[in-house]
Amino acid sequence: MKVEIIAVGSELLLGQIPNTNAAFISSRLAEIGADVYYHTVVGDNPVRLKESVEIAEKRADVLIFTGGLGPTKDDMTKETISQHIGLELVHDQEALSYIEQYFIRSKRQMTENNKKQALVFKGSTVLNNRTGMAPGMAVEQDGKYYILLPGPPHEMEPMFVNEAIPYLLQQNGKREIITSRVLKFYGIGEAELEYRVQPLLEKQTNPTIAPLTTTESVTLRITAKAETIERAQKLIEPVEKEIRSIVGEFIYGTDEDTLSSRALELLKSKNYTLSAAESLTAGLFMSALGKEPGISSVLAGGLVVYNEQAKVEQLGVDQKILDEHGIVSSECAASLAAKVKEKFNTDIGIGITGAAGPTPHDGEPAGTVWIGIALPNVEPVTYKLLLSGSRNANRDRTARFAQYYLIKLLSETMV
Amino acid sequence: MKVEIIAVGSELLLGQIPNTNAAFISSRLAEIGADVYYHTVVGDNPVRLKESVEIAEKRADVLIFTGGLGPTKDDMTKETISQHIGLELVHDQEALSYIEQYFIRSKRQMTENNKKQALVFKGSTVLNNRTGMAPGMAVEQDGKYYILLPGPPHEMEPMFVNEAIPYLLQQNGKREIITSRVLKFYGIGEAELEYRVQPLLEKQTNPTIAPLTTTESVTLRITAKAETIERAQKLIEPVEKEIRSIVGEFIYGTDEDTLSSRALELLKSKNYTLSAAESLTAGLFMSALGKEPGISSVLAGGLVVYNEQAKVEQLGVDQKILDEHGIVSSECAASLAAKVKEKFNTDIGIGITGAAGPTPHDGEPAGTVWIGIALPNVEPVTYKLLLSGSRNANRDRTARFAQYYLIKLLSETMV
Repeated sequence: MKVEIIAVGSELLLGQIPNTNAAFISSRLAEIGADVYYHTVVGDNPVRLKESVEIAEKRADVLIFTGGLGPTKDDMTKETISQHIGLELVHDQEALSYIEQYFIRSKRQMTENNKKQALVFKGSTVLNNRTGMAPGMAVEQDGKYYILLPGPPHEMEPMFVNEAIPYLLQQNGKREIITSRVLKFYGIGEAELEYRVQPLLEKQTNPTIAPLTTTESVTLRITAKAETIERAQKLIEPVEKEIRSIVGEFIYGTDEDTLSSRALELLKSKNYTLSAAESLTAGLFMSALGKEPGISSVLAGGLVVYNEQAKVEQLGVDQKILDEHGIVSSECAASLAAKVKEKFNTDIGIGITGAAGPTPHDGEPAGTVWIGIALPNVEPVTYKLLLSGSRNANRDRTARFAQYYLIKLLSETMV
Repeated sequence: MKVEIIAVGSELLLGQIPNTNAAFISSRLAEIGADVYYHTVVGDNPVRLKESVEIAEKRADVLIFTGGLGPTKDDMTKETISQHIGLELVHDQEALSYIEQYFIRSKRQMTENNKKQALVFKGSTVLNNRTGMAPGMAVEQDGKYYILLPGPPHEMEPMFVNEAIPYLLQQNGKREIITSRVLKFYGIGEAELEYRVQPLLEKQTNPTIAPLTTTESVTLRITAKAETIERAQKLIEPVEKEIRSIVGEFIYGTDEDTLSSRALELLKSKNYTLSAAESLTAGLFMSALGKEPGISSVLAGGLVVYNEQAKVEQLGVDQKILDEHGIVSSECAASLAAKVKEKFNTDIGIGITGAAGPTPHDGEPAGTVWIGIALPNVEPVTYKLLLSGSRNANRDRTARFAQYYLIKLLSETMV
């Protein structure tokens, strides 16, 4: 199946936004083994859009359009393709009543031009929009498939995954469903992860295994196709197990988990409270946990102790420790963790100290970081990082490593 | 001038990265009045690349390519276009010696395939790469312009701005240079800003004024063309002045300024030290300032006081204030600011309290925030925000508003 993705919108050609829709659609098509050979971006111009469609029809079987389904005059994707492929536009009653309900719910007056959004190709499969108004549509005409999706990513993405992918799989003659399992890693680079699971990556076709690096983590997405969701999950299970047996120690969560959501979950399950004393991260660790609703039941608070004076005066770290071992030391991190735990009377204390960069700090080179974690009834444990990024990359990674080590300590078993 | 941007790279078609290069190039071309009608993305495939070039030649005067200039076998942009337009590839001596120096500096062995990166079209204008190895090139052939740029954005962006734009302006028969001034706004929405400067936006052709919204701010970029940089700056001056007279109160900086860099600059210039007590932001405000190298001379530290107990016990906020006015109150914010200033013995104290959401907090609806700023020798001033975003959007915006209000207070005059 050869696919071309055509994004329609002058805002893309003016450089106001990048074409993230094409990237999203491409990554999901890769999972089902469809080949994307071209992305095209064209403005809100019927003549140039028509020409782009004609070019795409020569080189692809499936044309996926994003954008131009809205209520304004600029939105002309449907109208242009309708004329081109000779399928008239008709109002879809379900979509129309959904749009009407949408205006009632948001207590706004529905203007006449909004009805235009409920127009779909006669005989097409309507793709529901559950996060916006304009429905999408999919139709086959003269051996080519035309799939129209809205432009806003929060509308397009669920529609593509939940409606367009199943449509494509069905057209392919297969009554298949597709499901994924995402494994989330920290503390291992993408290159090393790929190297270690390489034999698996190569031999898999169903499920497929796709690595992806995000700001927060390295992930492996295991995607299976089968006739039922249960069978697809059965295909995923042994592969997940095998991956866990190889690199399970670096897995901190699955699917929608984040470092902070996992940390909160584990702290809650053990009924632990937490405080932190941060130096180079200056609150990044605590504010990352603060993302989670419900964190107030476990995060009492903490201190940002940026300079040496604050560490001693505000937290009571022994000046001797700093003199003997330095500010960037295991001893300092352990003391920060123990002192903040005591001061805030929490079960767990975290201490973070180091040289963010760009210059060395207290004799230690930029990127040297110590993280201390004080758990109930045991001596604090400490971890050393040697980071090589920019000042802010180092600070961000330190805050993430602190969450990762906390998760590791709180999980009885990571594998 | 009709332009088409052709990005070459299978990683784009697999959805591993979005095509941000096309967005960047487009936004800069819009400033010089060039029309971008199409973006195309094609894989590392010579046949399909050649076909894309043939299509682009029919509909554009200038073809700008990104990607495929590197040393590997996959990199075939130069070779494909060389054959297509009939211009042979020759080693550029300057680029070659730059690449050799690059390896010497980074203490790595230069392999033979790296020499390939110094190949350019015979007779083309070489575009220097000062942040990477592969040079770009620009050439006119049979009335069409071909501009080749590297794929990595940190190499492509400076090359495009500093080398390709001047080349294009020169070809256009004009010996013109182009320069910009960016004004950075906070506390005003994009729609309102555009509405208030609309008469200016409409009447300007040189300089042009382009609004752009980033995560951190709303900006106006004033861009002028002239024969010398001095004349271009002279064109910008009165326009900047006029904008400042209309919406100057919301300007916090210019060009490369960020909220945190401006705050640091002002604190340093006044020799002030700072501490903060944060509730809903849980350290976001302090960690934002922590981005700046050199912040340790002004930021002593502070407290994250997440729950009520911490506010009273750790910081000494009067329980009566909380009982009478609530945690989300002007009085609480003022007390947090005053108490942390006293505790850390700094010139300025910041207090942040509020309901991040999604649920109300202490009787106040989600999005209600109070920011207190205690300056030397005066009563704390407080600011109320009513935010309507998600929990995390509210937290991020609160941390930015706190920086913005601090900047406003520290600037004798914002206009």
